[in-house]
Amino acid sequence: MVRMNITHERISILGLGAMGRALAGALLEAGREVTVWNRTPGKAGDLVARGAREASSVEEAIKAGDLTVVCLLDDSSVRETLAPVAPKLDGRTLVDLTSGSVRQARELAGWLKGYGVRFLSGGIMAVPPTVGTEGAFILYSGARDLFDRVAPVLSPMARPHWVGEDPGFAALYDMAALSGMYGIAAGADHAVAMVHAEGGDVETFKREVLGLWLEQMLPFMVVGAEASETVLEDSNPGMQATGLETMLAASEEAGVPAELVGHLRASLWRMRHAATVA
Amino acid sequence: MVRMNITHERISILGLGAMGRALAGALLEAGREVTVWNRTPGKAGDLVARGAREASSVEEAIKAGDLTVVCLLDDSSVRETLAPVAPKLDGRTLVDLTSGSVRQARELAGWLKGYGVRFLSGGIMAVPPTVGTEGAFILYSGARDLFDRVAPVLSPMARPHWVGEDPGFAALYDMAALSGMYGIAAGADHAVAMVHAEGGDVETFKREVLGLWLEQMLPFMVVGAEASETVLEDSNPGMQATGLETMLAASEEAGVPAELVGHLRASLWRMRHAATVA
Repeated sequence: MVRMNITHERISILGLGAMGRALAGALLEAGREVTVWNRTPGKAGDLVARGAREASSVEEAIKAGDLTVVCLLDDSSVRETLAPVAPKLDGRTLVDLTSGSVRQARELAGWLKGYGVRFLSGGIMAVPPTVGTEGAFILYSGARDLFDRVAPVLSPMARPHWVGEDPGFAALYDMAALSGMYGIAAGADHAVAMVHAEGGDVETFKREVLGLWLEQMLPFMVVGAEASETVLEDSNPGMQATGLETMLAASEEAGVPAELVGHLRASLWRMRHAATVA
Repeated sequence: MVRMNITHERISILGLGAMGRALAGALLEAGREVTVWNRTPGKAGDLVARGAREASSVEEAIKAGDLTVVCLLDDSSVRETLAPVAPKLDGRTLVDLTSGSVRQARELAGWLKGYGVRFLSGGIMAVPPTVGTEGAFILYSGARDLFDRVAPVLSPMARPHWVGEDPGFAALYDMAALSGMYGIAAGADHAVAMVHAEGGDVETFKREVLGLWLEQMLPFMVVGAEASETVLEDSNPGMQATGLETMLAASEEAGVPAELVGHLRASLWRMRHAATVA
């Protein structure tokens, strides 16, 4: 069952959404032998032109590779895609990079382990355009020795980073980090909406103010997370709450949609909650 | 009334909260002659030890400086502090760095103009510990020629950046950027709460995942603000909405306080709203 000295240089990719295509492209670029499969055809053209082989079934795809990377829409798609072939996966290596919850990742790992699959669960810390570029990384969780053998093979996709044996940890850290990203998105959207509503210059604001300010504050916000009400060291929490309330009032006054201030309400709640607990 | 060739090297600071003290400290550090005043006494000790002079009244403070920097709790404090001396401010230069709304800044400018005050309204893009450090900057709005004369004098506090004649613009950009910062705070707080709730390692997560990921995504979020649903170029908006819903469900499942997901709800609203409008 255990095949030693696997080279893992023939890689199969299941799923050719924007992310799957980007991953396959990065591997081809690095000279890997790549086989691709997608539920609906017509997505592989460009990759085939660049040297990939297109498989006509999931089974054919998995058999063509020493290692299979799964990158589908969601956990249900992964289950549906793998269920018919699961009994034939004994000893195979699978890396699932599909976004999902911690529970889903843990359950999938258990289910595949039952079929003798060597399994890693991953979370891609990149968007399709940044795959293969500096700064992009992929979180992996599962057996450390498996990660050590797979990492060099998959490194052209993005820097591999192991986060633990628990197969749910890659999903956990991935989802939590995404939540952080949506925090930036929500804050920036609201900021731009306010500037627009009050007749300011949005492009100047983004370029000369917002970007520089967020870059400056990012480390404080990350280090101080879970205690953001005290991150502004030596400043007055009451003053910060006053500031937030002023911002909420100003936003309403400017006619910005009320749905856009969720991050302000969350921060205000956090401050008040901390004050109550303290 | 107009005094030409003002050197503006004697600076008075009204307000010695954490920010006022940091500003005064940076000016002293750079060799400026600084007079300070605070409504309640006992805040000037350290600054006096470093060479500042403490005034016993607002009027005395303003008369001691060629230029007065106001940094109080809020707009009401500014009004209350300046009202008794306003008739004596003709020809004086005042820079208000107190946080407030766009409307407040415009009204304050109009009120002081009525008394012949040369006025700039500002927004500090720094927190007390970063005053005087690289990356920190201060937005100023009001007459450009006044800014050009004041900027070199106040530059030790933080890089001066003029954003327009409209006295409300500094407050507008300041408040909008702060909203962006609270977006990061809300997202990071929620991320950390999720990792904690699911048994992950918070410090590892912050250091090895969250910080690197947010750094990588920040430029995308800023450039794509107001259209964050399309910022992930070439990816599927439906997939992103699915991802957000998965995150909301996972957060609930993990027992994270519901108040902490405001940024996710705002982002989801933005996607759906954009889909409706499109």
